[in-house]
Amino acid sequence: MNHVLRALSRPDQSHASGGEAHSRYNRQWWYVQRPVDKLGAEHFEFRTAKGAPLQDNEILIRHHYLSLMPGNRAWMQRDTYVPMLTTGQVMPGRAIGEVLESKDPDYKPGDVVETMLGWQEYAVARASVLTRRDKSVPMNHLLGVLGSSALTAYFGLFDVGQPRAGETLVISAAAGGVGSIVAQLGKIAGCRVIGIAGGEEKCAWLRDAIGLDGVVDYKAGPIEEALKQLCPDGPDLFFDNTGGPILEAMLPVMKIGGRIVCCGNTAQYDSPMPEHGPKGIPITLIARDLRMRGVLLRNYLDRRGEAEAALWRWTAEGRLQAIYYIVDGLENAPNTMIGLMAGANRGVSMVRI
Amino acid sequence: MNHVLRALSRPDQSHASGGEAHSRYNRQWWYVQRPVDKLGAEHFEFRTAKGAPLQDNEILIRHHYLSLMPGNRAWMQRDTYVPMLTTGQVMPGRAIGEVLESKDPDYKPGDVVETMLGWQEYAVARASVLTRRDKSVPMNHLLGVLGSSALTAYFGLFDVGQPRAGETLVISAAAGGVGSIVAQLGKIAGCRVIGIAGGEEKCAWLRDAIGLDGVVDYKAGPIEEALKQLCPDGPDLFFDNTGGPILEAMLPVMKIGGRIVCCGNTAQYDSPMPEHGPKGIPITLIARDLRMRGVLLRNYLDRRGEAEAALWRWTAEGRLQAIYYIVDGLENAPNTMIGLMAGANRGVSMVRI
Repeated sequence: MNHVLRALSRPDQSHASGGEAHSRYNRQWWYVQRPVDKLGAEHFEFRTAKGAPLQDNEILIRHHYLSLMPGNRAWMQRDTYVPMLTTGQVMPGRAIGEVLESKDPDYKPGDVVETMLGWQEYAVARASVLTRRDKSVPMNHLLGVLGSSALTAYFGLFDVGQPRAGETLVISAAAGGVGSIVAQLGKIAGCRVIGIAGGEEKCAWLRDAIGLDGVVDYKAGPIEEALKQLCPDGPDLFFDNTGGPILEAMLPVMKIGGRIVCCGNTAQYDSPMPEHGPKGIPITLIARDLRMRGVLLRNYLDRRGEAEAALWRWTAEGRLQAIYYIVDGLENAPNTMIGLMAGANRGVSMVRI
Repeated sequence: MNHVLRALSRPDQSHASGGEAHSRYNRQWWYVQRPVDKLGAEHFEFRTAKGAPLQDNEILIRHHYLSLMPGNRAWMQRDTYVPMLTTGQVMPGRAIGEVLESKDPDYKPGDVVETMLGWQEYAVARASVLTRRDKSVPMNHLLGVLGSSALTAYFGLFDVGQPRAGETLVISAAAGGVGSIVAQLGKIAGCRVIGIAGGEEKCAWLRDAIGLDGVVDYKAGPIEEALKQLCPDGPDLFFDNTGGPILEAMLPVMKIGGRIVCCGNTAQYDSPMPEHGPKGIPITLIARDLRMRGVLLRNYLDRRGEAEAALWRWTAEGRLQAIYYIVDGLENAPNTMIGLMAGANRGVSMVRI
């Protein structure tokens, strides 16, 4: 097989590692420079790497879809749920691929797997870092309605948020990958759902295409007043994808006894490290009897099957729309990521490789 | 009865309100100037007010103990669980008193009541703003082991914090009114209890007299390092009375999945209004799967009886020490309050009137 590649090796080490040279090259985006403010093209470098024969227990994967999400930008900046990325490596990211060749007896060509080795055409990995996925499902759905954004939405909303029918649910970044799914799950749970998003177009889309009960355009003015109009008693539940000024503005608007699900901090990923958190912590948590909790997906993965079954059923029933922003070509990964941080995309962002 | 006083009226209005003048005066501390930084004597003014005959359904109370707590200072600065105080009124505060005269058929002389009309010798009130207390209990205990600090400690720890035996509990302002009770309740719950306090003397007292398993002197250096020594995996539960820099420092120290009870923000009460909250909100809540919740005592008051029974039993058994800082004389209320904000007091602070 002429495309056996030691995909993760440094280009200049592929010979030194003893591998045989191959006629095909792996195309990769390397993370080469740490952003201090907004993400730019200069933080990535396109390289090609020669392959090497597979070692025992290694598996060669051809990536087909790469997931892009704001968390990728956060990894560059600081320790999050993973240690901060060091420069000088292929940019990691969640991807779906097909096994081309395997020296692991448990994997065979044609198997579909999820990796975190994303910003490259091929990857070589051992089974311990792979997740086997369902071959019968179109690959984009494996990163979409069955992907990590959807799982985060599912566990974040249902387990952390615990919505009850009739409650008012407010979602920030409601048009984003996680937000657009939370919005629809909130409707399924019987909530009155209000989305916060930037710009008239996104807000109109949330109202008309997603069927939200109310929308707030944070670019149009202070969200407090708009929210007081839409829910005078305040929301029971706030699913927050942004942190920063929107979280700060929401604290005094919450209903007494309200719950806040902390899912993301996109407002502060694509800028210098925030010096401070939202005003009102902890005093407003006390004065309004609020509770906040983060959602950390890996703590729920033992219940992945339950979540996927529900998400897939709702998709089949037409109650959960698959909203994807798919860009063709690995070469477009950095620009798509830059656009994502600028709020250009709707739904789950992916690159088709 | 010659000390029938319309205690809450402005001195210059006591005649205008139609009351008969009396030979005795009510001594009062008025809140006259809003602090912009540290609390000082200039923010209060000592006045005397003439009394007036009781109206129908009014009750005359002689205050005996006034509770002082950091929340009193917070009320002057901003909306909390009560709207921000306006200047030009008798300083409110929780107090225990005895009914001297009553035109409400449900109250009679000798009854013991709790009021929020505290910084004065006498108060006139209607039943709706009074809480009847147990005459058989010494009055200082009604503000102490059976008072609002103890109830806040009880519901904050047991209901919000939900400690389990064997868990590590960290408490900030552990020598304070709420903190010193939480520390002892944490031991009763079977936790390993670590207290954060300012200064060697308080820390030694927490260790030796209260029996804590570990102490951290926040004045001696960064608390992160001390805590990592005392609990390398981080605390399961953090009962926070201070907010500010200590809360910020605790976030990355918490155990994955840990809980934070937000009970107070003393670090930011006696200074200009904080511009920002702790760094790490929300990202560290996500990355460490943390949950935070405020404790708002009034939401639990329907279970006051349960809490009082438990607190009184533990006191009788010697498992809960009554630690009070009692100053004699209403004239000393402002200075005691100023000292409290500077960290001078241990346990529950009271003024004996």
